[in-house]
This record gives sequence, C-alpha cells and structure tokens, in this order.
Amino acid sequence: MTVDLAVLTVRGGVLHVLLIRRGQEPYAGAWALPGGFVLPRESAETAARRELAEETGLAPSLHLEQLRTYSEPDRDPRMRVVSVAFTALVPDMPEPAAEGGGDADRARWVPVGEVTRPAFDHARILADARERVGSKLEYTCLATAFCPPEFTLGELRAVYETVWGTALDRPNFRRKVLATPGFVEAVPGAARLTGGRGKPAALYRAGPATALHPPLLRPTEGPAR
Amino acid sequence: MTVDLAVLTVRGGVLHVLLIRRGQEPYAGAWALPGGFVLPRESAETAARRELAEETGLAPSLHLEQLRTYSEPDRDPRMRVVSVAFTALVPDMPEPAAEGGGDADRARWVPVGEVTRPAFDHARILADARERVGSKLEYTCLATAFCPPEFTLGELRAVYETVWGTALDRPNFRRKVLATPGFVEAVPGAARLTGGRGKPAALYRAGPATALHPPLLRPTEGPAR
Repeated sequence: MTVDLAVLTVRGGVLHVLLIRRGQEPYAGAWALPGGFVLPRESAETAARRELAEETGLAPSLHLEQLRTYSEPDRDPRMRVVSVAFTALVPDMPEPAAEGGGDADRARWVPVGEVTRPAFDHARILADARERVGSKLEYTCLATAFCPPEFTLGELRAVYETVWGTALDRPNFRRKVLATPGFVEAVPGAARLTGGRGKPAALYRAGPATALHPPLLRPTEGPAR
Repeated sequence: MTVDLAVLTVRGGVLHVLLIRRGQEPYAGAWALPGGFVLPRESAETAARRELAEETGLAPSLHLEQLRTYSEPDRDPRMRVVSVAFTALVPDMPEPAAEGGGDADRARWVPVGEVTRPAFDHARILADARERVGSKLEYTCLATAFCPPEFTLGELRAVYETVWGTALDRPNFRRKVLATPGFVEAVPGAARLTGGRGKPAALYRAGPATALHPPLLRPTEGPAR
C-alpha cells in the first residue's frame, strides 16, 4: 500500500500541483505526485504526513484529506500496489526543500495544465483532486486554505476564479462572502495597497466556519453536470 | 485488503443499514457490515460488487460510492487489514436472500440507532456513511435513490426528514423540489391514494440531473457545523 499526495496551490492565477521528477524506473524522468509506501505500523494518514515532510518539506501538520483509494490491479507495473490518495491545499509559497534531498529530488510547482503523461495513474488522481476541490469550494470554507493568513477579497476571489476557470462578478462575490457567517473576518485596521489606483484593500483572515451556509455556487449553464 | 459496504435505506421513517450477524471470531455474534477480502485480480470496486451479490443478494449493478479507506494498524485483531468502505442507497425492500447463504447468514435491515457495538471499526464507518449521505442530500439528487421508481413528493420529503432528523416545511419543500431543474419528473397521468383525505398525490420519478442546483440546504441553527 502506498499514499499519493495531491498538494495544490494558486500561483499567479494558475492552479499548480507539487510534483517530483522520478529518478528511477518505472516511469523514470516522468512527473509524479509525492508519496511512498505505508510502513507496517502506520495508518495511511500517518504515512501521508511522513511523506509530506520527507518528500516536500511541508509541515506534517498541514490539513490533509482523503481523496479516494486507487486499486486497479495493473496500476503499478512492478506489483500489486493499492494507493490511498490525499489532497492538501496550501498558500502560494516557494518550493520547499525536501528533508535531506538534493536539488534533483526537489518537489516543483507545476501548472496542472502542463502536467503531461505523469507516472502511474497520477493523471487520474490529479483530475479527481481538481474536481473534488472545485466542489469543496462551493460548500466549504476551504478556499481560504489557498490564501496567506491575511488576504484581500480580491485574492479570495482569484482562488475561486482560478479553480473554477471562470470570471466572477466582483461586487456580487464581495456581497456573498461578507454575508456568509464565519467565512472571513476583517483584520481591524489592516489594509493593503494592491498596486492599482484607489484606496487600499481591506484585509481579512479565515473565520471559524467550516461549512459554507449558504454555499457559493459555481456558475453553471445547464441544470446539472 | 477488504471492502466494507454501508447499504442504507429508509424504512417506516427510520434510517436502516443492512447488517450481517457474524458467525465466527473475532466478534462472533456481533453485527457487521457486509464485506470481505479483495481477491488478487480485483479492484476494490470489483470486490465490492461481488460481495454485495454474495452477502446481500443485491444487484451488483447498484450504484456504489467510495466512502473512505480505514487503515489504522490495530483495526482488525487478526492481522493488518486495510478496508475500503463503500456506501449504497436503496429503496425500502425486503431483506434480500444471499446467494447460497442459509437464513442464519442472511443480511438484515437494522435501524441505525439500534446498532450497538458492531464488529471492528464498523461503528465509525457507519457514522461516516450517515454524515456523507446527509451532506450529499443537500448538493446532489441522491435522495431519489432511497425512493421506489415512482414516488410522491411526500415520500421524497420523508427521506430528507429521516436522514437529517428534522421536519421540513411541506409547501416550501414542494416548491423547491419542483423549481430545481432535472431533480424530479412528473409521471404523466399517474397518482397514488396516500391513505389520508384529499385528492391522490401525483407521482414523480428521478430526473436527469445528478447535482442539485440550487442545493436543498439542511436547516441549521448556527453559521457552521
């Protein structure tokens, strides 16, 4: 049994995933999600936190969520390997240095649209992770996990626009976010110059809510997906 | 690796789960979710469909959904066993006869509130399944999976009320359901006498939608759960 980690961030308006370049066969030279084998006394959750630290240098305390388990008998050409996949969402940050890893092993942020032919069934895992995160943004407060501790409403809106791949109405978004109890909290007296004209933008941090009531629905054309 | 199946139905206004009485140790005599070991050439999905037919007699074509994978090292006293849990929602039906199983092995519908000290970590799996189904009812059309092929809006409302454990306003529910594109479709000319006074209730069947837009939100008191 292995774990695979789909760690996502929003960087420059583009969804990125943290990948490792594989050094050995199978799939030598291909991009792969960080991950590895579960040790005999570990749960999948414990192994995921360990691999996160070892392979990416990210804090093992990061919020990880089980995505799905992948168990097709032929998914690994070496032997039968079942993988429990996890997702994690992090603010934009430089590539962390892996524990004791040389530069060649270093995890890299790669735009998800540029991930071609990754190892194993990692293309499918990544597609499932994107879909899950897109839905979660509608019904949970998870979007703030992509933001730094203090953020503007414009930065929060950019997360939604990036993950959903669609532009959102600025005043409408602002009104909905501020009307949703516990989603964001104003940082008293704090504001940031956003580079453009006009007055500095107010800063917010994540509020205590975890579920979004009411939800922020993804714009849709038909009745269902 | 094993699979465990949380098969749920609504019977007489009470949420029920399909359980097997264990014949052997460990946990001899305790209730357990149907399930079993994954064979060498099977995916967890294939094993789940096979166990569904073998242990419960339900059609293997039933819609199954991965719930979560449970991998705590001590969850099975015999050895290290990782289990991939699935949920299935079915209309109320008599206990199906298991393939070749005697009556003692027969799966039984048990009210979820009466499941005391089930085998392994099945109490946790069942709790996770209830929570997942409660959320899914808000954002997907899954509630119709609990209904017979043709149902009244009262029957659909009873599914929501049972799973959420809360009474819903009848006219408001009706208005919302009928305003949600693709959720239900009227069966032309069909109606059912519901036993009470008044005119027969119109019959509906599941529509083509899978996602509920807009969602049917569970009544909540605070800003978040």
